[in-house]
Amino acid sequence: MEAKNIKAGEIKDSQSQNFAVIGGGSWATAIVKMLSENLDVINWYIRDDQAIEHIEKEGHNPNYLSSVEFHTEQLYLSSDINKIVEKSDILIFVVPSAFLQNELNKIKVPLKDKIVFSAIKGIVPESYLLVGEHFNVKYDIPYENIGVITGPCHAEEVALERLSYLTIASADENKAQLVADHLSSNYIKCNITEDVIGTEYAAVLKNIYAIAAGIAHGLGYGDNFQSVLMSNAIKEMKRFIKKRYKMKRNINDSAYLGDLLVTGYSVFSRNRLFGNMIGKGYTVRSAQLEMSMIAEGYYAAKSAYDINKKDDQKAKTPIINAVYKVLYLDKNPKKVFAKLADKLV
Amino acid sequence: MEAKNIKAGEIKDSQSQNFAVIGGGSWATAIVKMLSENLDVINWYIRDDQAIEHIEKEGHNPNYLSSVEFHTEQLYLSSDINKIVEKSDILIFVVPSAFLQNELNKIKVPLKDKIVFSAIKGIVPESYLLVGEHFNVKYDIPYENIGVITGPCHAEEVALERLSYLTIASADENKAQLVADHLSSNYIKCNITEDVIGTEYAAVLKNIYAIAAGIAHGLGYGDNFQSVLMSNAIKEMKRFIKKRYKMKRNINDSAYLGDLLVTGYSVFSRNRLFGNMIGKGYTVRSAQLEMSMIAEGYYAAKSAYDINKKDDQKAKTPIINAVYKVLYLDKNPKKVFAKLADKLV
Repeated sequence: MEAKNIKAGEIKDSQSQNFAVIGGGSWATAIVKMLSENLDVINWYIRDDQAIEHIEKEGHNPNYLSSVEFHTEQLYLSSDINKIVEKSDILIFVVPSAFLQNELNKIKVPLKDKIVFSAIKGIVPESYLLVGEHFNVKYDIPYENIGVITGPCHAEEVALERLSYLTIASADENKAQLVADHLSSNYIKCNITEDVIGTEYAAVLKNIYAIAAGIAHGLGYGDNFQSVLMSNAIKEMKRFIKKRYKMKRNINDSAYLGDLLVTGYSVFSRNRLFGNMIGKGYTVRSAQLEMSMIAEGYYAAKSAYDINKKDDQKAKTPIINAVYKVLYLDKNPKKVFAKLADKLV
Repeated sequence: MEAKNIKAGEIKDSQSQNFAVIGGGSWATAIVKMLSENLDVINWYIRDDQAIEHIEKEGHNPNYLSSVEFHTEQLYLSSDINKIVEKSDILIFVVPSAFLQNELNKIKVPLKDKIVFSAIKGIVPESYLLVGEHFNVKYDIPYENIGVITGPCHAEEVALERLSYLTIASADENKAQLVADHLSSNYIKCNITEDVIGTEYAAVLKNIYAIAAGIAHGLGYGDNFQSVLMSNAIKEMKRFIKKRYKMKRNINDSAYLGDLLVTGYSVFSRNRLFGNMIGKGYTVRSAQLEMSMIAEGYYAAKSAYDINKKDDQKAKTPIINAVYKVLYLDKNPKKVFAKLADKLV
């Protein structure tokens, strides 16, 4: 798999395509910002009418990345998801995986002929499928019309226009290229790849490893241990993904290793914070109550564990197993991580 | 190359071997602490008589890791390097690479029959050789008596007895095992490997990448960029090391990737700090004057650049080249890193 560097301004024959962003969170807001560098109009679905009103009046999202100023004439906003989907050729879904099915249930417009990209980093809890697989299996969208947008990328740094790299994956290279062209700018560089499954799993698994990093930190393990944990995590990710979908990939490309690092080493990561609370002795329930939102990695840990377990060809996944035991089997994090530490090299 | 996990307490037939630590800095002090968990006596060379007097009286090194308390009856201290070398079978060198030759010049006792391990992370400036190669080429020590002790490991966390992992490399697995046995404890886990050249280059190169991380930070690049820089750095390290010595190695083992991460993400790293000052506009000279000590990566950048350049089989090393241009050719860091950013994927 050869990653290609797409330069800004290489857009060809694609201004006729209408883009929609489905979701109103910080990553959705960042993606709208990126698209607004290249498109005259972006269709933007936000379920919250008050947020829409605020954006239309004040030019910024009141809840997320509020420093980002939009030219409102570039935005077609609606809380009616069908209106947005109907007007658009390319749909970029950016809602938490736990809420995806709920949004999809509202859609009456056929999705079959849409190009659907996911910027969601999670597994759909209702189907135990990756978002891309979910669209394929449940909505009959062919794989050549499905893609994934992945990091390493904190939305906050996009807001600050700090140079960031995205990886755009699709089985159809032209569609990956098309989306990459529209996201690229002087502060966003995009690579494209065919590895939809691998990049999407990487985005899912990294949240579990960020929880592991948080638990270790909460238990008092230091930077030396963290670096060993991350080295083992990338090797585990490689094994896990290889069992799911074997292809030539370099696990040290930024879509895999970079994404792991930006999350695992971020003190702002919700997943790391959640793990940290667990390591410090919070119960899962109390940590969840304390946080305004459930960390994606919480669901991912169960899904990844189950997916791996039911496969005939299990990958060796001591870190995922440890996180699963702590979060779902109520095992003592200190004991589980002491055992895990013995398995790391 | 299969890394093995050595458990503490597996020492066999080796209490008869006398160990010496050559050096009085923080990493040397940490290694003496590790050995003191397993040995009755450690021979310890420190060139500074005042430091020795302080350790003998107060039980701790006045200048480095002063929180570490030694049982002084376990230490045979001397500022006479020949006394220490003469009494010892296994010498662990832990002085900055820039001062190594100066110390070696003092040694009159033959080194040929000693087992020599390097915990130095640098290239010998006088010979442009790795420390292990230097001992082999200049002192006729056969490779089976040469080894390397490498991280990922901050000395400060050893002082706190936070769980840390070391990798011990030697062409002779038994000698790697012997040294590993004596360093292992309930807070130190050791792996062994035959990859002396690879682990030593990794320890050298990571300091250059830490300078690059510092320059980027100083220039205002954010965490998204840093994760891409580190992903590209580990791929570059793999290419570089492969050209020097080809063998089956997993570059994501903790001796390579872990060591890169613990340094590249450390705000305490001297190399990262040095780079940060350069990125913020200090000249090389003024940054060096500002710091009490020259960062190892400064020398390493030139050595690695030259070594790669003169090889028929050059590796592609955009990051090393960028650091070299900034540090030695007086190029503008902002421009050099903007060009580098275009090459990263």
